[in-house]
Amino acid sequence: MGQTIQIEKAVSLKEKPDVSTVKFGTVFTDYMFSSNYTPEHGWEEPSIVPYQNLEISPAANGIHYGQSVFEGLKAYKNGDEVLLFRPDENFKRLNTSLERLAMPKINEEVSLNALYELIKLERDWVPGGPGQSLYIRPFVFADEAFLGVRSARTYQYNIILSPVAGYYGGQLDPTAIYVEDDFVRAVRGGVGDIKCAGNYAASILAQQKAAEMGYEQVLWLDGVEQKYVEEVGSMNIFFVRNNELITPKLNGSILSGITRKSLIELAEYKGYTVKEERIHIDELQAGLKDGSVTEIFGSGTAAVISPVGRMRIHGEDYVVNDNQVGPVAEDLYSHYTGIQYGHLEDPFGWIVRI
Amino acid sequence: MGQTIQIEKAVSLKEKPDVSTVKFGTVFTDYMFSSNYTPEHGWEEPSIVPYQNLEISPAANGIHYGQSVFEGLKAYKNGDEVLLFRPDENFKRLNTSLERLAMPKINEEVSLNALYELIKLERDWVPGGPGQSLYIRPFVFADEAFLGVRSARTYQYNIILSPVAGYYGGQLDPTAIYVEDDFVRAVRGGVGDIKCAGNYAASILAQQKAAEMGYEQVLWLDGVEQKYVEEVGSMNIFFVRNNELITPKLNGSILSGITRKSLIELAEYKGYTVKEERIHIDELQAGLKDGSVTEIFGSGTAAVISPVGRMRIHGEDYVVNDNQVGPVAEDLYSHYTGIQYGHLEDPFGWIVRI
Ligand SMILES: Cc1ncc(COP(=O)(O)O)c(C=O)c1O
Ligand SMILES: Cc1ncc(COP(=O)(O)O)c(C=O)c1O
Repeated sequence: MGQTIQIEKAVSLKEKPDVSTVKFGTVFTDYMFSSNYTPEHGWEEPSIVPYQNLEISPAANGIHYGQSVFEGLKAYKNGDEVLLFRPDENFKRLNTSLERLAMPKINEEVSLNALYELIKLERDWVPGGPGQSLYIRPFVFADEAFLGVRSARTYQYNIILSPVAGYYGGQLDPTAIYVEDDFVRAVRGGVGDIKCAGNYAASILAQQKAAEMGYEQVLWLDGVEQKYVEEVGSMNIFFVRNNELITPKLNGSILSGITRKSLIELAEYKGYTVKEERIHIDELQAGLKDGSVTEIFGSGTAAVISPVGRMRIHGEDYVVNDNQVGPVAEDLYSHYTGIQYGHLEDPFGWIVRI
Repeated sequence: MGQTIQIEKAVSLKEKPDVSTVKFGTVFTDYMFSSNYTPEHGWEEPSIVPYQNLEISPAANGIHYGQSVFEGLKAYKNGDEVLLFRPDENFKRLNTSLERLAMPKINEEVSLNALYELIKLERDWVPGGPGQSLYIRPFVFADEAFLGVRSARTYQYNIILSPVAGYYGGQLDPTAIYVEDDFVRAVRGGVGDIKCAGNYAASILAQQKAAEMGYEQVLWLDGVEQKYVEEVGSMNIFFVRNNELITPKLNGSILSGITRKSLIELAEYKGYTVKEERIHIDELQAGLKDGSVTEIFGSGTAAVISPVGRMRIHGEDYVVNDNQVGPVAEDLYSHYTGIQYGHLEDPFGWIVRI
């Protein structure tokens, strides 16, 4: 943390909004992290600069060929303290994403230190209301002006910050899910297990189709057999079956969520039995029919836990736990967010205090 | 063609390079086409503006979530005339791509007319040497400053132009191909059949791996069974087997190449038997072993035809047609490029003269 980072001061600061009325991902803070990559010098020393538009070539490789990856994490306020949740995991995963797209890896240590400095500078932007946080978006994209398909020579790496309200104002709220039988999100050998730009654009049409039918998210099946449960929207998925917590085993097309990983650790710590399995959609359907599946929820940084109240499988609707938040979701959610906000003890060493 | 388009004149024009020494996709002309989309006004009337950098938000949706699609076509010079090859097909396919990524469709008619005006203005940039052309790159991407995963509200649509030399200075040259058994380019239900940015970034690592082993391109197998031949690099693929021309049948994960489609038409016109089939890689391997497969070549706008001289299948190398350009590739290439450059009659109505 000792490192000093160059800071270019903003001429004037923005007025801070009432975060409770702000739409997710639309308001950004006064500063951003910035570093550029050239083959000659690698990643230049990062600097903190006023939040500003990027000037890029219309031939920028990242726009045309999608060499573009990102991360998402949050900073939470507890009194005067700002808490980060496992930020090292995000930079580690950023490098996994970069490697898969043949992009230059970033220095995780330097990134962490620069993020701490940025958060210190923007401390007043971290909102303190229930469920509120400062969303942190690191991203790297190719900016070489070149229209050939190969790894680009130059890149930009930025971190921008956006104050956000809780998904449900800090309250859990069950959603309706559509099991997608036609569109495919990812396949083994592809890029489903990294956070690259292209995955998200490819998912939107299925999401729109589900929305038109009254469902809020899509449940994705595997790309090979279209039978095995993978993810829900941009979240990992958990089930409670016979009081055991089940989540799909990582298989090369599922994103390895940090919330997923942390919930598994927390649940085991709390005495739950947790199983990572290959889950056939028909097995899930049978479990909903016979009542052995009592809860379903998504997991991700944005909402932490998103309970599923209704699910459409092969043209039939199933109500999950009377469309109510289940006891396991509730228990894990309150413990997990309690750790994130510093209200509960952190026996795992997940929290970085700034 | 009657429509007038607003042109913002450049203050000074660039010096035109010696195209024979220019690297593909690195030099751009003086002007570009530009149009913006808002939900209130749809696509604004396009204008032609000096080639310039784009100023975009660091939160631009297209960078983070990959709502970004493109096209590629070429203008050829014949004396004083400039010829375009089936430009309507490119704008049609652009709309297919836009639809799949839940982006607003463009007006094909308006786009065509604007392109004609742009080419008129940049006529002197169309190089006249053998194999040379002006590469045309229409592209659309989301520029809304918003970090949520949904269809963006605002978009930019641009067309940029780049003078290019022939891939082989107008001469065909056989390449070595590696059949990829691990990485997957596309799967049915996904986005392999459109020209979206994410597909290309996802393909680079396999390409690098092949290059390290001494191969120039990857042959992609289907994403479900990893057994059926789909494409080669960013090209479609053709075989000559027992004097018949074979190409994989479109299946939802193969891009519908305009060169592929046009070569099929041209070959049938010239009396070849053409078959679109599902081709098992073992079948291809057997055909190379027993000599029934006598030629293999890729097809695409960039190189038109790219003969394969060597192919590695399941760890074994096969030489195709003595690593020489085959008679069918040669015949189709010379006829096809003859039409493109206006040296041969165009019985199909493919050429637009400007
Ligand atoms: C596709 C996808 N799956 C799962 C997740 C959940 O990951 P995490 O828990 O690290 O936020 C995310 C993103 O946040 C995602 O984009
Ligand atoms: C993946 C892919 N396949 C095939 C092709 C060939 O298409 P076309 O003949 O229209 O250039 C292209 C692009 O040009 C492509 O990007």
